[in-house]
This record gives sequence, structure tokens and C-alpha cells, in this order.
Amino acid sequence: MNQSLQKYVLLIHARDELGLIYKITSILYQASLNIEKNSEYVDKEEGLFFFRAECSLQGLNQQIPEIKQQLLNILPQGSMIFLEECKRKDIIILCTKENHCLGDLLLRYESGEMECNIKAIISNHRYLQKLAERFEIPFYAVLSDGLSREQHETKLLQQLDELGGADYLVLAKYMRILSEEFVVHYKNKMINIHHSFLPAFVGANPYKQAYHRGVKIIGATAHFVNENLDEGPIIAQDVVKIDHTYSVREIQKAGRDVEKIVLARALMLALNYRIFIYNNKTVIF
Amino acid sequence: MNQSLQKYVLLIHARDELGLIYKITSILYQASLNIEKNSEYVDKEEGLFFFRAECSLQGLNQQIPEIKQQLLNILPQGSMIFLEECKRKDIIILCTKENHCLGDLLLRYESGEMECNIKAIISNHRYLQKLAERFEIPFYAVLSDGLSREQHETKLLQQLDELGGADYLVLAKYMRILSEEFVVHYKNKMINIHHSFLPAFVGANPYKQAYHRGVKIIGATAHFVNENLDEGPIIAQDVVKIDHTYSVREIQKAGRDVEKIVLARALMLALNYRIFIYNNKTVIF
Amino acid sequence: MNQSLQKYVLLIHARDELGLIYKITSILYQASLNIEKNSEYVDKEEGLFFFRAECSLQGLNQQIPEIKQQLLNILPQGSMIFLEECKRKDIIILCTKENHCLGDLLLRYESGEMECNIKAIISNHRYLQKLAERFEIPFYAVLSDGLSREQHETKLLQQLDELGGADYLVLAKYMRILSEEFVVHYKNKMINIHHSFLPAFVGANPYKQAYHRGVKIIGATAHFVNENLDEGPIIAQDVVKIDHTYSVREIQKAGRDVEKIVLARALMLALNYRIFIYNNKTVIF
Amino acid sequence: MNQSLQKYVLLIHARDELGLIYKITSILYQASLNIEKNSEYVDKEEGLFFFRAECSLQGLNQQIPEIKQQLLNILPQGSMIFLEECKRKDIIILCTKENHCLGDLLLRYESGEMECNIKAIISNHRYLQKLAERFEIPFYAVLSDGLSREQHETKLLQQLDELGGADYLVLAKYMRILSEEFVVHYKNKMINIHHSFLPAFVGANPYKQAYHRGVKIIGATAHFVNENLDEGPIIAQDVVKIDHTYSVREIQKAGRDVEKIVLARALMLALNYRIFIYNNKTVIF
Repeated sequence: MNQSLQKYVLLIHARDELGLIYKITSILYQASLNIEKNSEYVDKEEGLFFFRAECSLQGLNQQIPEIKQQLLNILPQGSMIFLEECKRKDIIILCTKENHCLGDLLLRYESGEMECNIKAIISNHRYLQKLAERFEIPFYAVLSDGLSREQHETKLLQQLDELGGADYLVLAKYMRILSEEFVVHYKNKMINIHHSFLPAFVGANPYKQAYHRGVKIIGATAHFVNENLDEGPIIAQDVVKIDHTYSVREIQKAGRDVEKIVLARALMLALNYRIFIYNNKTVIF
Repeated sequence: MNQSLQKYVLLIHARDELGLIYKITSILYQASLNIEKNSEYVDKEEGLFFFRAECSLQGLNQQIPEIKQQLLNILPQGSMIFLEECKRKDIIILCTKENHCLGDLLLRYESGEMECNIKAIISNHRYLQKLAERFEIPFYAVLSDGLSREQHETKLLQQLDELGGADYLVLAKYMRILSEEFVVHYKNKMINIHHSFLPAFVGANPYKQAYHRGVKIIGATAHFVNENLDEGPIIAQDVVKIDHTYSVREIQKAGRDVEKIVLARALMLALNYRIFIYNNKTVIF
Repeated sequence: MNQSLQKYVLLIHARDELGLIYKITSILYQASLNIEKNSEYVDKEEGLFFFRAECSLQGLNQQIPEIKQQLLNILPQGSMIFLEECKRKDIIILCTKENHCLGDLLLRYESGEMECNIKAIISNHRYLQKLAERFEIPFYAVLSDGLSREQHETKLLQQLDELGGADYLVLAKYMRILSEEFVVHYKNKMINIHHSFLPAFVGANPYKQAYHRGVKIIGATAHFVNENLDEGPIIAQDVVKIDHTYSVREIQKAGRDVEKIVLARALMLALNYRIFIYNNKTVIF
Repeated sequence: MNQSLQKYVLLIHARDELGLIYKITSILYQASLNIEKNSEYVDKEEGLFFFRAECSLQGLNQQIPEIKQQLLNILPQGSMIFLEECKRKDIIILCTKENHCLGDLLLRYESGEMECNIKAIISNHRYLQKLAERFEIPFYAVLSDGLSREQHETKLLQQLDELGGADYLVLAKYMRILSEEFVVHYKNKMINIHHSFLPAFVGANPYKQAYHRGVKIIGATAHFVNENLDEGPIIAQDVVKIDHTYSVREIQKAGRDVEKIVLARALMLALNYRIFIYNNKTVIF
């Protein structure tokens, strides 16, 4: 990127009011922040306004705090404003035994498609250590043998803290349930891939549930994790058709292809500042 | 169809055993029933064998009972055998207010795509009477005003009986819950379209549920009706992608296109003798 | 709709410039045109700016010409501005023998889902006259027997003129090729459904071509008609999976379901002023 | 697998005749080859019969040649019979610069999902050498600098011969056109992934073509390679929706996800003996 042409992202989440776009773009225009791309959405039922712009700025960014203040002045009270230079986010990946989601992320990372820093891979098993090493990413086994959930999560948090935390934790088929106490540390910062088309088949063994229910389509759901298992805001979903000839194992196999694509898609939306969360839902720009 | 070349369907549902296909095709071969198309499936977990063949027979069909007996002789005890000349099935459509599923079926009927006899359309409202009349199909309003569920279903059964019943009842957005007592009369003979991707969002207002859950995909499910609401064997499903900009009304609109296609697809599978039901699931050939 | 609260659509297609959104929304804000929904898109390669807003106006609309003038003043030379009160558009449907697209449009029309006026149905055959009559839409047979293409198109234009023309002609499986001379009269105002996933299988018999090529997916494409057969701007496309067991007839059958959905979707986009055309492509808001 | 219970695949491609299934299964039954799964398909237009069975055999396989002879005796002249014990096939992957297809295959290989032996990776560049090494697969650079197509292909064939050849060559985004002279050596044994929904956008830069045509859906096609570029028998296809906001680069990105899934799916069909080729089409069981 050109040193003197920096790219910024502006995110606004406010109560809806007449003239918001005019007022916002007026400030940006006067500040010579050039809008390269912008999107708005109004949830009429709730009276909420969402705005996202990618801007470029010729020159120094000393005015950024000032621009934020000007925006705050014209926006309704209680508005959320985010205005920062785009940067590569730090992520830490949690995984267990299956290699498809982790491997897919690593390949995208290696090719430069996924613009972030993978700081580390943490697992409750050693199965995927070799894969991490193949791609030269630090691997930490935080084993759970003989530990209570609480003890294990304490160790996990310690490990995360030692690593300096991350902008996002990516649960790439991390097969342990996380307690409310853990989740609170990374609220809206953990992206999980659930191996079903939520809200169908919440809980354990969704592919087995799908097999026994005889569904003709299965899916995968990437969502932010909140206190309630499998009930956080949905970011992305996709599906694949199956039929009666699929065994549980074949359903799993078909599902894995959807899982990895959906997880990567969701993560890339997050890395590009394209997700708003409200009312346990997402707005995706 | 040529008068002297009749088309038969053979359906077999049996315990799996060594050599079943050989034994079955041996009998068909000796009887000069020419297999035009056949399919088998073995559910290994359950040890069940499913076989479907479309056959043609040169000459008289007097041997059909004899062939059935021969098949019974070589099949395991308790096998189900169906061997009949293909015929147009009688259907009766139940509907309420929305015209898209009913209309779609009527158009397919008129073009000759849907090979059956629509004997009648029954509704608990008068909204769709005009549409029925446009296509010259007898319409019967069985209104529910002031009636208990039991009383209304009694009237509905009377109406169905007066019409001589049907091979299939098609619930084309029939928006009343049917009691166990009613269902038993048309067990595995009622095809319903549920406006969600079952088992997600069972029950009322699935589109509203989908809106509030913030899903990124919605779907529709055609299924046989059993005693438990929305839990019968699934025949066909399909989905359509949505995003946060869709209001409940727009989700409904998008959903209607999936509903009508999925219902028609399921009905045509039934009309073509292509569905086996077992363990609350379907095998579709 | 409330008498004193009118709904307007603003469409702008201009050379891209710094500050366009600010300048446009500034004018709207001062004119008390309340933006209910807006979308922008910049084609960076071509340096083009597209803007669409749905606005509501409290009070009289006498200022509309004035607002348009103000917009013209601040927009780059050569900009296209459309600002009008939303209205139901007039459409005329052309068809031939197949009933699925026509019937689907009529059902949506009857239910109120498709907000327009269907002024007439014109066909080069009489097959669909009855269907038109069922829905009480004027039907005109403009037969081509014994006529040259030129003669037939002259008659067709006469018929269209007698009917007072239409905002859009919808070619709902109208199976005659239209000459450049005809097309020029309804340039970018004719929506056709092509029974393939364009640009695959242009020309005649696409399903037969698909069968012989052994594709595993077929599709349908709704597009504006231009001088070059099947090469106009694409509005909507969708697909359905097939396999080797599908005969040409079964491919057609599967294709019909996609055709009717895609055509209706495209038409509704047009009726809602949601399509820009440029460089033989579309921007869909 | 149990030593004394071996798994066989039987493939038959013959002129269609009355009683083929009976005659075939009769021989299998008498030989105590237990059919675990079978599929048939008759192309009525061409009068061709396709049969595939997975069988298990208790005991020694000395009778296999005898069974084949018995099948030959009862099948029409010119029939193709394949009856062999299932085995892991040898594959060699050809690639150029992009890592997504190669990496995806390597991950599936590592997890045991893709049952084959990857003997080597050959590339006309060194970009993917490191990825090959990460997964410990022999990598051979057969560079084309300063060589004519003929010279390069001669070197490539030499390299393949030195490696002892392979059951399948997988072109995982191998971006060089192969001459007829080369293709003849691996006719119907090379699986290519073409980055478009064939037959749309044959030739170079399909994503750029798709961008300029303004399509709303893009796809990928896995096919066997024959003498005519991009015109070999199609094995698998899939698509993904795009819209006007996608740049060529974003179309490519979206396309890559489809490419890798479709290529892997096609390869797994081949590895499982599930593909028949005839008339430049495939039958997939």
C-alpha cells in the first residue's frame, strides 16, 4: 500500500434519524476522506442505522480523532463509531482432531488470500500438531486429561494471555463446549463453525441427528459464540444436498466441505470489518 | 400408451438377504416382464432391502397375481410387494388462503406435466374458490367458523368420503393443524409443505422465527404427515439464500418460490411410485 | 399508501467524482425528501457511479422538477437522473405454447405479489388463450402463418401500438427470434427468459445441447434483449443439478422450474426500479 | 480390511438386452460374490447398458478369471467387463502456481479421506515446491523456459515415465494447454479442473470473460481431458452466486472455493471406480 494513501474503515451503529447519511458524508467530505465504498442499512422495526465506509486519506492521519469527534457531535446519543486505519488482525485458531478447517485456513493464509496474522494454534489434542508445524505456525497443546472444565479453561486462558490474546479466536472444529465464564473473555470475538444448518440439530452429533431424521439437505453455520451453545449471531451458512444412500460417515464427509468454506467466508468477513452484531443477529456489508 | 404394451411398477421392501436381486430378476425374466429401469438400496445398519422396477409387459396381464405369488415365495417372510399397472392417482388438494402452491399444481396439471386426477380442492376458507373455478376443479369450502377442531375434522372427513377419498391428500399451504385422529385416516398419504427447512423452526410462523434468529438461508420441506406435527418422513427439501435486508414479508416471498417447487417435486415423486417410507424416513428412487 | 406520504425513486448514473454522495444527500435533505433506503456502487475500472434511493415526501410533489434541477447542477455533465413517484408499470406478456412462465406470472399477479398492470398477453399461437381467459387478461393472437418475419413483426408492432405500448415486454417463453428492427422499439425494455445458463448453449434447443454435452447442472437466464440474440444484459440466473439419468424431456422439466422463478425475479427487479444497464451488464440494487 | 473378505468392483458396459441383470446376478450368485451395492443405467436412445456392483467374496479370489469368462459368455459381443479387487490408485498431480486445489487434495490425503497414493507432484514452476515439501510428497519441476511445447511435453512424459506413470493425472490448476500428442498417452486418465461452468467461457481467462459478460453465477467443471481443450467428458460441476460488485479478482477468489471442491469430488468418484465414459459424457454411479 502506498505510504501516503492510507485506507480507513468507518463503522457507525446508531439510532436512525433523518439526514444521517448527509451529515456523515458531509463531515467525511470536508475532512477529505474519500469514500471508496459505502453501505447503509436501516432496521426499520428497531429504528437502527448501520453505516460502513471504506475511505482513503491523502496525507497524515492526525485528524482522525477530530473527525471522530465531529461524527459524535452530529450522531444521536449512544452511537457506536469505529474509525481506524485498516490493519491485519491477530487470530488464534483452536482445534481438536479434524484437519479440514484448520488446513483450509492455513492454505488461504499461505497464499495471501486471508489477510491476518495467525499467532498460534491451540488444541486440546496433539493430532494437529504436525499440520501446524508443516505450516510453521506455533502450536500449543492445552490438554484436558484429568482436568475439570474449569481447570482446563483456566489453562486455556493462561495460554491465550501468554500469547497476548487475539482479535479473533477461530474455533476450527474445536470440539469442547466453552463455559459462560470463558466466553465472556472473548464475547463476539470467537467464531465457531457448527456442523449443521442451525437452528436445526443443535448440540452433539448433528450429522447423526440428520441421518436419523432423514433430511435431504445438510449445512454448516459459522457464528459468533455467546453464552448459549450454538445460539450466537449467525455470520454465514451454506448447504449441500444428500439423499438416503448417505451413511452417517458420508454425511460427515459431505459436511466437511461446507464447513471449511463457510468458516473461511465468515472469518474473512470479520477480518474485513464487514460485520455488525445486534439483537443476536448480524448485518453483513 | 400402446394398448398391448403395459407399464408396471414393482416395489419390494424386505429383509436383506444374499441373492435377492438375482432371485427377483429371475422371476421377472421368466415372466417376460421387461425391466426398463430398476433401482435398489440396502440399509445396512437396519438390514433392509428396497427394490423398485419399471417393467413393460407384452400381452395380457393375467399373470400378475401369479408373479406376485412367485416373488412372495422367494422373498423373506414379512416382505412388502407391490406390483401393479401404472395408473394416474387421484388426489385432493387442501388449501387455505395462499395461492402459490395450489396455483402451481394447477398449472402443472393443465400442461399435462403432473399426471394425476385432481378430484377436488377443499379449503377452510373461500379465498381460493375463484382460482379453483378458473381451472374448473370442484371446490368445497369446509369452513371452521364456530366449530371445534373435532367437529371441523369430522366435516372434512365427511367431505372426503363423499368424494370417494383419494390416493393422496396434498396440503398446499393448508394452515390448520390436523389431529392424530384425522391423520390416521390418511397415514402416509398426506403430503404437506412446511415453510421451513425442517427440523429448524417447527411450529407456527417459521419465517418470523427465521427473521429473529437471523439465519442466512431459509428453506421448505415437503413431508408425509404423521401424528407429530412437522415430524413426518421428509420427501424433498430446498433452500434459498437471504440476508439481513430481508423483512419478514420478504422472507415469506422468497420462501414461497421454494415451497411451491418443493411441494410439486414431492408430489410427482409420489405419483410416480418413487417413495418408500420406513423408520420415519424415505428412500427416493 | 397514505395520500400525503408519497414514495419516490431516485436513480443516478454518473461519472464518479469525489463527494457525490454528500452532494446528492445534501440536496435531498434540504428538500425534506426522506431517504428510506439507498444503495451506491462505483465501477472503479470504468469510473462510473450508480445511486438509487427510495424516498418519501411529506406534502406536495411540486418541488420534484426543482430537485432534479439541483441534482443536475451538482452532478458531472452527462449524468442520468431519474426521480419519479413510484408507480405500477404496464407490462405486456408475449408467449408461445408453454404455460409455466405465463401461468407463474399470472398467479403472482392475482395474489398481488407482482405489482404492475398486465395490459395484455400476445402470442403467435392460440395454445395459451384459454389460460389468459381463465385469468381474465386480454389475449391477442398475432399468428405468423404464411408471413415473413418482417410481416409478422409489423403486425406485432401494430398490435402493441394499438394497446398503447408498455413499460416492459416480458418474453415468457416467446419462441420466435426478434429482428434488430423490432428490438430497437423496445430496447432495454424487453425481458427474456433463456432456457440455459448463458453464455452456455446460446441459440436453439439448449436443453438438447446440454443433454449431449453431458453437463451436470442446467440453468436459466433472464436478460434484456438487444440486437444480438441471447447476448443482452443479464438480470438474473439460477441453476438446478441434473445427472446422466435425465432425458432431454426431464432436463426440460427440471429447467422449467428454474425458468419461471428466474423470469419472475427479474421482472420484479425491473418493476421496482432496481436495475441499471451499462456496458451490456446490469447493476442490481 | 479383513484378509479373508475381499472387496471387488464389477463394471459392465454393454449393448442393452433383455434379461441382462438377471443373467449377471445369476453368475455372481452362483460364484458366491455377494453384491453389497449395485447400480444400473440404460441409455435408451443409444441402447446401452451400464452396470456397477461392489461385491465381497469370502475366500480366495482364484475364481475371478473364471467369473469374468462366464460374464463374457452371457453378455453381448463387444461388452466391456472390469472385475477387480478394489485397490488404492496411483495418482500424480500437475500444478502451476495456485495452491488451493493442490493443498486441498493434500489435506484430504493426509486425513485419510482420499484413498489413493500420491506418487508425485509435478509443476512447470517452483511456486508450489514448498507446499509439496510441507506434506512430504516428491516434487518435480519440469520447467518450460526456453522450450517449445513439444520439447516441454517430451520432458514431462519422461518424468512421468521415470515415475512409472499413474492411474490418474490430476491437473490441479495446471495452467498449460496440453497437445493432442500428449493427451493420447493419458486419454480418459487426466482429470482437469476448468475455472468456469463449461461450456460457458471455454479458453483462457474465464473469470475475466465472466466479469465482462456480467453473469450472476460462476462455476467450475471437473472433466476428463481429451484432444479438444475443455471439451472432454464432464465429471462434476458446481456454482456460486456473484453480483455486480465482484471485481475480476473477487470472482477468482469465489471461484477457487468451487474449483477445489469440484476437483476433489471428481477425483474421489474416479478413485472409487464410479465413472463410465461414453459418447464424450459420463455415467456416475
